[in-house]
Amino acid sequence: MTYCVAIKVDAGLVFCSDSRTNAGVDQVSTYSKMYHFNINNSRQLIITSAGNLATTQAVIARLRKDIKDGATPNLASVENLNEAADYVGEISVAIQEKHANNNTNVSFEASFLLGGQIDQETPGIVLIYPQGNHITTSAHTPYLQIGESKYGKPILDRILKPETGLDTASLCALVSMDSTMRSNLTVGPPIELMTCATDSFFMQHSVFDADNEYLRSLTKSWDKLIVEAFLQLPPVGYIPPQEG
Amino acid sequence: MTYCVAIKVDAGLVFCSDSRTNAGVDQVSTYSKMYHFNINNSRQLIITSAGNLATTQAVIARLRKDIKDGATPNLASVENLNEAADYVGEISVAIQEKHANNNTNVSFEASFLLGGQIDQETPGIVLIYPQGNHITTSAHTPYLQIGESKYGKPILDRILKPETGLDTASLCALVSMDSTMRSNLTVGPPIELMTCATDSFFMQHSVFDADNEYLRSLTKSWDKLIVEAFLQLPPVGYIPPQEG
Repeated sequence: MTYCVAIKVDAGLVFCSDSRTNAGVDQVSTYSKMYHFNINNSRQLIITSAGNLATTQAVIARLRKDIKDGATPNLASVENLNEAADYVGEISVAIQEKHANNNTNVSFEASFLLGGQIDQETPGIVLIYPQGNHITTSAHTPYLQIGESKYGKPILDRILKPETGLDTASLCALVSMDSTMRSNLTVGPPIELMTCATDSFFMQHSVFDADNEYLRSLTKSWDKLIVEAFLQLPPVGYIPPQEG
Repeated sequence: MTYCVAIKVDAGLVFCSDSRTNAGVDQVSTYSKMYHFNINNSRQLIITSAGNLATTQAVIARLRKDIKDGATPNLASVENLNEAADYVGEISVAIQEKHANNNTNVSFEASFLLGGQIDQETPGIVLIYPQGNHITTSAHTPYLQIGESKYGKPILDRILKPETGLDTASLCALVSMDSTMRSNLTVGPPIELMTCATDSFFMQHSVFDADNEYLRSLTKSWDKLIVEAFLQLPPVGYIPPQEG
């Protein structure tokens, strides 16, 4: 399994991904699931991936080859994020079908979060399903998730709004990742975080290893704060007086 | 879907269940999923159920009939919780098989949480899988869940220990239910809560409707406290000085 989240706020974009891959519990490896395409410093695209590792690697290799070959379309030629998503979706479906033909017991499915800024277009993010279609965010749901998404969803719902700052959105992504890692063995460090301020065309990339001091301090603080918050709740059946 | 949680602490047992059933999003009903068997005030058993509603209703009906008929075994005759779980598991499997014979497209599966106190035995809880086998709790995992379990799991992991009091365990069950309802449309009120202090042979039963003032105050307080806790976290990359 995998967990990746992408957030779109007015101030910019945040991407966060784990690095654990597994095929069974005794075949565990570490692979980055975050790919960065910087094209002439005028378009910055980030892709994070979940699902079959052979499929995702083949998709990324094909995307890089198409740019190099000047194929039509490629990530350097698409006019906007929507076209980019259609293009990545088509490649993903083609690669899945190639291998799926004679194999019904294995899933070759993969899903992707794609986002960034293309020229002067508004930055955005999309989720590309294994079937090749895609969705984007809304003001009410300014984030997208792939992989093991349930444990880390509540904090995103509580905190994120379009006007949330990039620092807060980054922190929220890390807390969401922390909750997921705590509850699911197949999601693990290093944790990658990528942020991009609107119109800056500059990506800030951080990697947090398992023994990263900040990540450990975040986990510990959040544990403590949640327990303290719980202890302040009204006891079962007690209705606190209305505040004036 | 459904969400049920059962907690076993030294002080006693807590059961919590939602009441929403659905077959598709436009076929939604309200059914209690909590069943109480008080046998001569010397054995108190609670069952909560998830899965196919026809299967769970048939299982409960059969359990009641077996007690009435004095069948061997029945919930009044089994010597301990382990025997009770084997017996319920066998009935559940038999009922599933009866309907599954000619229907491969529908799932008749059901799972159950069974718990209580039988005579002077130590109170306990078990999770009965659709296959009829069962597991119980441990000191490190003093709770069991069925149905939509992911959203409500983190708070149980953070708070529950064998020495946790019944009031705190009850509050924890409600917060776990609140997180699940918030994130999954197929889990909904009324919320039922049942607690039983060890050796008391007395079950305290509460029902919280959608507009229950306490439940609303709990949801609102938890929302506010979580956001406050989040705002106290160290900013990304900042490592707070070690406390003396």
